Amino acid sequence: MIELSTSRILILGAGYGGLVTATRLQKGLNYNEAEVTLVNKYDYHYLTTWLHEPAAGTSHHERAKVDLNEVLDTKKINFVQGTVESIEPDNKKVKLEDGTELAFDYLVIGLGSEPETFGIEGLKEHAFSIRTIDSVRMIKEHIEYMFSRFNNEPDRRDYLTFVVGGAGFTGIEFVGELADRIPELCREFDVDPNLVRIINIEAAPTALPGFDPELVEYAMDVLKRKGVEFLINTPIKECTPDGVILANGEEIKAGTVIWTGGVRGNHIVEESGIDVMRGRVKVDEYLRAPGYEDIFVVGDCSLIINEETDRPYPPTAQIATQQGFNCAENLIALIRGGELKPFKPELKGTLASLGRGEAIGVIGNKKLLGSSAAIMKKLSDLRYLFILGGISLALKKAKF
Amino acid sequence: MIELSTSRILILGAGYGGLVTATRLQKGLNYNEAEVTLVNKYDYHYLTTWLHEPAAGTSHHERAKVDLNEVLDTKKINFVQGTVESIEPDNKKVKLEDGTELAFDYLVIGLGSEPETFGIEGLKEHAFSIRTIDSVRMIKEHIEYMFSRFNNEPDRRDYLTFVVGGAGFTGIEFVGELADRIPELCREFDVDPNLVRIINIEAAPTALPGFDPELVEYAMDVLKRKGVEFLINTPIKECTPDGVILANGEEIKAGTVIWTGGVRGNHIVEESGIDVMRGRVKVDEYLRAPGYEDIFVVGDCSLIINEETDRPYPPTAQIATQQGFNCAENLIALIRGGELKPFKPELKGTLASLGRGEAIGVIGNKKLLGSSAAIMKKLSDLRYLFILGGISLALKKAKF
Repeated sequence: MIELSTSRILILGAGYGGLVTATRLQKGLNYNEAEVTLVNKYDYHYLTTWLHEPAAGTSHHERAKVDLNEVLDTKKINFVQGTVESIEPDNKKVKLEDGTELAFDYLVIGLGSEPETFGIEGLKEHAFSIRTIDSVRMIKEHIEYMFSRFNNEPDRRDYLTFVVGGAGFTGIEFVGELADRIPELCREFDVDPNLVRIINIEAAPTALPGFDPELVEYAMDVLKRKGVEFLINTPIKECTPDGVILANGEEIKAGTVIWTGGVRGNHIVEESGIDVMRGRVKVDEYLRAPGYEDIFVVGDCSLIINEETDRPYPPTAQIATQQGFNCAENLIALIRGGELKPFKPELKGTLASLGRGEAIGVIGNKKLLGSSAAIMKKLSDLRYLFILGGISLALKKAKF
Repeated sequence: MIELSTSRILILGAGYGGLVTATRLQKGLNYNEAEVTLVNKYDYHYLTTWLHEPAAGTSHHERAKVDLNEVLDTKKINFVQGTVESIEPDNKKVKLEDGTELAFDYLVIGLGSEPETFGIEGLKEHAFSIRTIDSVRMIKEHIEYMFSRFNNEPDRRDYLTFVVGGAGFTGIEFVGELADRIPELCREFDVDPNLVRIINIEAAPTALPGFDPELVEYAMDVLKRKGVEFLINTPIKECTPDGVILANGEEIKAGTVIWTGGVRGNHIVEESGIDVMRGRVKVDEYLRAPGYEDIFVVGDCSLIINEETDRPYPPTAQIATQQGFNCAENLIALIRGGELKPFKPELKGTLASLGRGEAIGVIGNKKLLGSSAAIMKKLSDLRYLFILGGISLALKKAKF
């Protein structure tokens, strides 16, 4: 690596937080004002909030991908495709799996989350997760493979049983899509739709914990009408190659188990020596890691307490995007000798899709449901695409 | 069942032999001249000779299906959807799995073949077969599932290794299609094509045993250029969940093993008490089972010796179709009190596809290869569709 007199900003991860930081730096920095490097495992960004669709097969995974060269100006940002192996905060160095070492003056950690299995036995080995393009492409193919096997072994009803662990956002959005896809799968594979079961299992006393009860009821009604069965207040004890075993000892045989029960921070951050709680870094008001003035943490790896509720803000794309804006602005200020601006999350609202034309949500204090919520959801997706890649990306990827 | 004074003709199986028998009877018989019943597991016929395409995913399985109601006149032919459980030739009865009993005056057995595994351990359990719509749909989905898994476990090269046991007609035609499909699969699943292996393994000293050596060489050259590897003169000793073990002890790890190494007759026929050799009935010159003047056997379950070579004719769609014609004609003669006509196979030729635009074949004494053979193959498919369902079916299903 050539040493330059300009500051070296290293961004790890091209998720919502990391990529927005990069694109805002690209926009805000003058040429040669800093050397910015973005490291990512893939040469594309993906829209995590859309992954339930390609997982169910209701849209193609290509839709949820954004090629980095479409949004990065490589004259201003260096892109390194690679997987981070370790962060050495005191040596100001990052190592990649291929042996590359990258030095930094400022580091932005946006490595995203990992599935949290809460120690439930067998989940890691036998359950799928909705987390990357690779993982959802595999879920889609696994579902189709199960359908294709059934007519060859018609006593294996478990091939047509789909267990979704967790009825939070991802779980609810996924079962909505999967239920929408079933008729098509049944036609393609000559399967009687009455034999198919989608079972959504949640340990908490309600689906969508923390959400408005009226909206939760609406969501469950919509999904039940589509054929989804709910087991609420029902912890899973174990996941096996044959399905799941509930805490009450009951076994549900299922060819496919998908775990959406929660996320935690990243093991790379945990192993770096930076203070973490379940892989998340409790950042200061400028998104900096405790004790490190030059290390910023954005996205799912950062932990911010909502003072109104005294609970952490949930790891969402919305907050990660806002952090990207703030982090880029503060990095520019640091380089130019300006004032740092504290990060203040601005909760615009929350929207959960329930499949074709149906959603629920809260915008400000206003509850939304049905098609109006579905339209708001599309508009909010559109807004993010616009932030990331302007009108052309929005037109290319948006679903109308 | 209502007893009618007319003869009851019962046809088992709507493959090439059974279905052509049925459609020829439908054409030749007057209304109420006989009561004809066709039993089949599915409500469709399928073009076995096309199954290598949907198995590889180069055409949709719907293409290889012909709905029986498109070719059967249900005023003349009763259709019973069911699976034959047993044949009682002396009681003149057939039992179906659902308990139905069907009596007959004349029986036509067209139950088709089953894979012959030659006692190779593990083949039945771990290898796929190209034999029905259900089975090829599963092969296609399994191939795609393997591709989808690879990026999630990049050290599992076996996911991208496809072993095809048998380099006879089906094996050769399948590897040609699969090789054609690989580029598309690699794009869809972001896989480097150089990591994919298609290995065709044949125990005999040559691929396509019995075929003209010049054409065999041409075929292997075409397929090698597409990336197919051949292991000829190489028996498989065992199939395991991890791949195959060769007779020389070498293991080939493969996520997918497809067995095309041979077929035998049907176990239902074997268990009926009728004399069989490996499930095939050595029929008399009128296609009748030995000792039964009222039982005809057509298609892969019938065994006819080619007197020129002193070897059995291979089980082909061509011969099954010709048997259907002969059998229907003789049944009509029996009902009307006419003369029986002996069956004489007329070998028009043999054509094997090698994927897109490539084939080899022999028509009469003329060797064909390349695009001219591919065109002849399409014409011969067209001819069969025309026999079965006239111009409308030919136009609907044919590939131009």
